[in-house]
Amino acid sequence: MRRRSLRIFIGLVLVGLSAGPAAAQLPNLYGPPISGDNAKKIAAAALAETRKNGWTMAVAVVDPAGELVYFEKVEGTQAASNTIAIEKARTAVRFKRPTKAMQDQLAAGGEGWRLLGLREAVPVEGGLPLLIDGKIVGAIGLSGGTSAQDGVSAAAGAAALK
Amino acid sequence: MRRRSLRIFIGLVLVGLSAGPAAAQLPNLYGPPISGDNAKKIAAAALAETRKNGWTMAVAVVDPAGELVYFEKVEGTQAASNTIAIEKARTAVRFKRPTKAMQDQLAAGGEGWRLLGLREAVPVEGGLPLLIDGKIVGAIGLSGGTSAQDGVSAAAGAAALK
Amino acid sequence: MRRRSLRIFIGLVLVGLSAGPAAAQLPNLYGPPISGDNAKKIAAAALAETRKNGWTMAVAVVDPAGELVYFEKVEGTQAASNTIAIEKARTAVRFKRPTKAMQDQLAAGGEGWRLLGLREAVPVEGGLPLLIDGKIVGAIGLSGGTSAQDGVSAAAGAAALK
Amino acid sequence: MRRRSLRIFIGLVLVGLSAGPAAAQLPNLYGPPISGDNAKKIAAAALAETRKNGWTMAVAVVDPAGELVYFEKVEGTQAASNTIAIEKARTAVRFKRPTKAMQDQLAAGGEGWRLLGLREAVPVEGGLPLLIDGKIVGAIGLSGGTSAQDGVSAAAGAAALK
Repeated sequence: MRRRSLRIFIGLVLVGLSAGPAAAQLPNLYGPPISGDNAKKIAAAALAETRKNGWTMAVAVVDPAGELVYFEKVEGTQAASNTIAIEKARTAVRFKRPTKAMQDQLAAGGEGWRLLGLREAVPVEGGLPLLIDGKIVGAIGLSGGTSAQDGVSAAAGAAALK
Repeated sequence: MRRRSLRIFIGLVLVGLSAGPAAAQLPNLYGPPISGDNAKKIAAAALAETRKNGWTMAVAVVDPAGELVYFEKVEGTQAASNTIAIEKARTAVRFKRPTKAMQDQLAAGGEGWRLLGLREAVPVEGGLPLLIDGKIVGAIGLSGGTSAQDGVSAAAGAAALK
Repeated sequence: MRRRSLRIFIGLVLVGLSAGPAAAQLPNLYGPPISGDNAKKIAAAALAETRKNGWTMAVAVVDPAGELVYFEKVEGTQAASNTIAIEKARTAVRFKRPTKAMQDQLAAGGEGWRLLGLREAVPVEGGLPLLIDGKIVGAIGLSGGTSAQDGVSAAAGAAALK
Repeated sequence: MRRRSLRIFIGLVLVGLSAGPAAAQLPNLYGPPISGDNAKKIAAAALAETRKNGWTMAVAVVDPAGELVYFEKVEGTQAASNTIAIEKARTAVRFKRPTKAMQDQLAAGGEGWRLLGLREAVPVEGGLPLLIDGKIVGAIGLSGGTSAQDGVSAAAGAAALK
């Protein structure tokens, strides 16, 4: 069941990535907050990917309200990533979409610039919603590498939720 | 009488939309705050349009000071829309113009980028001033769909004020 | 003496406008805060110009620290101008330059976008430093019209300081 | 030893400048906070360069947490530089990189615009991390001239740490 949700979710993400400007909130409802154990498992998978590549990053897992559930970082990560990892996760869960979709809209310019006027939005790749049984239970955020690297580690974390 | 005000208002909005860079504050004075009953009626019309199209949005109605009078949302709306709907309505009433006019100016780039430097402005379509007897009594803000969808629902709400 | 200061100031402004990207802080030192009487006189001149043109604006005069000394507005001015007029004046005095110079830098894009990253800056035309005897004693800020209109009224206000 | 660290650091900076979009956090760990004496020496060198060129600037030195250790300014510096110098230094230390790298990314537009969505970032040249024995012990920030001038004085300050 959870495996299926994840597949649906990944499908939606892929659709979102290809659709570009059509990026929209996921249709899924918010569920109960992700457990500390699950958050820890996800974060561990994200940091394993991070260390495998020799990157230095911070990882944050938040609940559906955007409140912090778990945080950890590789020794020596830039201090700014402490807040950015949380803000990416918070953006992903409160906008119900991968932050990369927002980064892509912003990068296109024109109407995309309006995203900089939304105070709750941190439109930077590296934040992904987390789903269990089709419900959004939280989000993961990575910061410390390039945005693309942050995205790779975030995806590795999200893939551990099955 | 109120019907005439609305017609004038819609006319002004259309002029504003076609004029582009000439977007300016409405000449109308601020009036007494919109009543809770009227706010509810407007919000209901906006959400009816929203549900008819299968969208998930939050709607906010504010008074001339930008303070919240009424708020409601479709089940499952992204949490960020809770604040964005209010901020769009607040922007529309405090700048006395549709937020789309500001989004258009920003999207043109150049001098338009200065809108991102105005702390009170959320230059994103979906906020509209509300007029009764030629006075601005508040504003409506929608968030949750694309900006254009938010604008459609906001217009449906404003049209119920007659 | 004051007349000469004003001429020097206007000269500097004109140089700044033509120099474009070279826009820099005025070399003048900060002086004692502008008096309430002078602030009132300047604001009156700015609002006279505003009313002559049929515009609706707010005017703010701040001291060298950016604190408000005087505020007044034309009936019916959009509420957002209450804070924007103050912020333009505050930007002009704390950056010791006309806010138009910052708007021009931003409008050029590229490195100019960095101005949006400066939290104290409101890079929007309509703010001008005020000088007496070669010292910066405060600034004036106008908001409510187009940026260019705000600039016209601000200049009319500054010209009354002689 | 410290001389070697500085050379490595300058090398990294040069690599960063040439690499452009590859700008990344320095691999160095955070060390103990820079001493007040060292901060004073660095600031003096930066202001000597500033005065030699006839510029008016503020200089700030912060510790690894971004907290202020030392602040001084040339008489007559624009008041906004008081906070901007600190924010540039804070950005340099918390992102572990020269702020010019971030300014360059932003100036390229596209994905670079996302830097404006990072609340801790002031992406403006003039901030440099400071290293002793290969550890980041703080950062220096200059403000008051053009960004390039700020960068020249900041480099003169950092070069005094040997």
